[in-house]
Amino acid sequence: MVICMKDDVVTFAQITPISTPHTAGAWTFDALPLQLGGSFGPITLAYETWGTLNSSGDNAILLTHALTGNAHAHDSEQPDDPRAAWWNPLIGPGKPFDTERYFIICSNVLGGCYGSSGPTSLNPLTRRPYGLNFPLVTIRDMINAQRRLIEHLGVRELAMVAGGSVGGQQALEWAITYPELVRKVVVVAATAALTAQAVAFNEVGRQAIMADPRWHQGNYQPGKGPDTGLAIARMLAMITYQSEEGMEERFARRPASRLDAAPSGYAAFGGSFDVESYLYHQGKALVRRFDANSYLYLGRAMDLYDASADYPSLEAALRRIQSQALFIGIRSDFLFPAARVRLLAEQMRQTGGHATYIEIDSPDGHDAFLKEWKQMTEALYTILD
Amino acid sequence: MVICMKDDVVTFAQITPISTPHTAGAWTFDALPLQLGGSFGPITLAYETWGTLNSSGDNAILLTHALTGNAHAHDSEQPDDPRAAWWNPLIGPGKPFDTERYFIICSNVLGGCYGSSGPTSLNPLTRRPYGLNFPLVTIRDMINAQRRLIEHLGVRELAMVAGGSVGGQQALEWAITYPELVRKVVVVAATAALTAQAVAFNEVGRQAIMADPRWHQGNYQPGKGPDTGLAIARMLAMITYQSEEGMEERFARRPASRLDAAPSGYAAFGGSFDVESYLYHQGKALVRRFDANSYLYLGRAMDLYDASADYPSLEAALRRIQSQALFIGIRSDFLFPAARVRLLAEQMRQTGGHATYIEIDSPDGHDAFLKEWKQMTEALYTILD
Repeated sequence: MVICMKDDVVTFAQITPISTPHTAGAWTFDALPLQLGGSFGPITLAYETWGTLNSSGDNAILLTHALTGNAHAHDSEQPDDPRAAWWNPLIGPGKPFDTERYFIICSNVLGGCYGSSGPTSLNPLTRRPYGLNFPLVTIRDMINAQRRLIEHLGVRELAMVAGGSVGGQQALEWAITYPELVRKVVVVAATAALTAQAVAFNEVGRQAIMADPRWHQGNYQPGKGPDTGLAIARMLAMITYQSEEGMEERFARRPASRLDAAPSGYAAFGGSFDVESYLYHQGKALVRRFDANSYLYLGRAMDLYDASADYPSLEAALRRIQSQALFIGIRSDFLFPAARVRLLAEQMRQTGGHATYIEIDSPDGHDAFLKEWKQMTEALYTILD
Repeated sequence: MVICMKDDVVTFAQITPISTPHTAGAWTFDALPLQLGGSFGPITLAYETWGTLNSSGDNAILLTHALTGNAHAHDSEQPDDPRAAWWNPLIGPGKPFDTERYFIICSNVLGGCYGSSGPTSLNPLTRRPYGLNFPLVTIRDMINAQRRLIEHLGVRELAMVAGGSVGGQQALEWAITYPELVRKVVVVAATAALTAQAVAFNEVGRQAIMADPRWHQGNYQPGKGPDTGLAIARMLAMITYQSEEGMEERFARRPASRLDAAPSGYAAFGGSFDVESYLYHQGKALVRRFDANSYLYLGRAMDLYDASADYPSLEAALRRIQSQALFIGIRSDFLFPAARVRLLAEQMRQTGGHATYIEIDSPDGHDAFLKEWKQMTEALYTILD
């Protein structure tokens, strides 16, 4: 900012953008009743915010992250780098999640390993990580914890909740559980409940983790966990986040140009394909940044999520929603098939709700909600003012 | 059989079917040059035959089995039990593979573990199982070994080669490599080369096997192998053999009624789904009947198969085919997508070949070629006289 003084008139000429107000922190509260029974606490949620909450406390947008995501949805230092934060290109001044208009909130989920309470947190009773003594938390528990956080932040009503994948499950659950608090909801690449096939893929990954001798029933020390099993689980998950079409475009049958170490220490016989080396790399990369027990817990929350739980039917659950809803499916997604996302929008409309459906035309599979910035932006502007 | 004698006229009234001639055995030959270099021997092939070879040696049908299959394509003792042999309902008197007209041959593939030479075979030099000293064999090596077998059996020309999945790869390779020997070929649920996605799924399974501490770089004693890793690999493979649609019909989100032990010893958190228990069961069942090293070798042969290998192009390879060809795709197959099977038939037609394509309308995914007996029968009769 340059301040020019001329003839006693002070003018402000903005030649660089005013930096977006940004906070990052963690907040701890006493306890939460859990969906599957009992109560758990204390609970810490790590969170970040961008922008400013207005005086009526109703311009907040809550973004909910996917399985291995975190609170860092936006990076105001590197706003132009899509890799610097998971929804970076959608957030900021003049973006759909406009930080000059909205107070954007994103927190690491309950059960996560990016600062919120999860299996890696120290159990105050034992002063050791919870491990498997951490309770089985659900999507509903996650959003109940988020509700406590937004109250703490002074939010009285959410202008929007939006998320993709497990984040989409959270967004949907928000609209069902707290209809009076959510004006708009965006559910991306998520459905009312996983298919048998998706549960099956998740379980194969979990078996790989729990079969790793270093898992020790979850009682491993930091840095000494089931790296091999987690890397194998991630390899599989990365296939399910893409599509046959997209992988064919990207890898086809090209041989590996450089070979990342395989999780088991042994690469495939007869030379490696590029796609194999890529998956080895992805497996290793997750191990560096994610906890195996958290992976087990969050994946299971994803499987167990059923929007109709504790209601007479899915219709009854959807009828509760008062929010204006946008459902976004991805043509090539086979984890949360577009047809099932569209069906969910139709089911909500049939209950009298205000729901629209937009399909992203992408070969990138499930991951397209983290890649197709132009289509995501256009879709979001259909529901954002 | 009842013999009625009346007025010196002898009539034969057949009131029970004449039992189909059946042989089961193994044959050993000296050595085979391998596609990837070198030579390997001695080689034993376990095989079975049904029916009788005619005097001109040209009524033989060779059936080629899938990844974990074996030579037992038909069970003449239990011809009506689809579970007694892998293509049982398609073979026998009055069936497409008519044992009264054809001499049906099926052998366990080179690299297998059902009597043919493979990693579990004793290395004559060390008197211990080959393990990873077994050479990396290819689909072409498998069919070259089969060629030696059919010559040994007196076959001069094959009326047909037919197989599904890895068996379909073998059938295609037969038609390309030995055009003068194969009058008709049936390629079911197979393509000229695996997609990147299919290779990726296979590699995740292999990593699970090789990460199992009991794998010991392939040097395990019989019965002490990587059972956990193999079971996990099988769980994943079983998903890829089915379809989202078929699994949804069969399992949806039903809880497990009985719980098979999970490969890792630890079931998923929060109660198990039926689909999980089913996969645990399938994993365990394969461990009882299959060798982990064989699984690694055969899966890799499947990945490495490329019908165009050693030819200037796929078109050049397909142009070699003189057989009348039938390609059968399965609507819901995502391992060998129907669109790619159809494309292969079109590519062969474009080279001037005689190729037809039939699509099986089934929710059963890749496995439909082992389930949809009526449609398979009808499809086969379009090419069989």
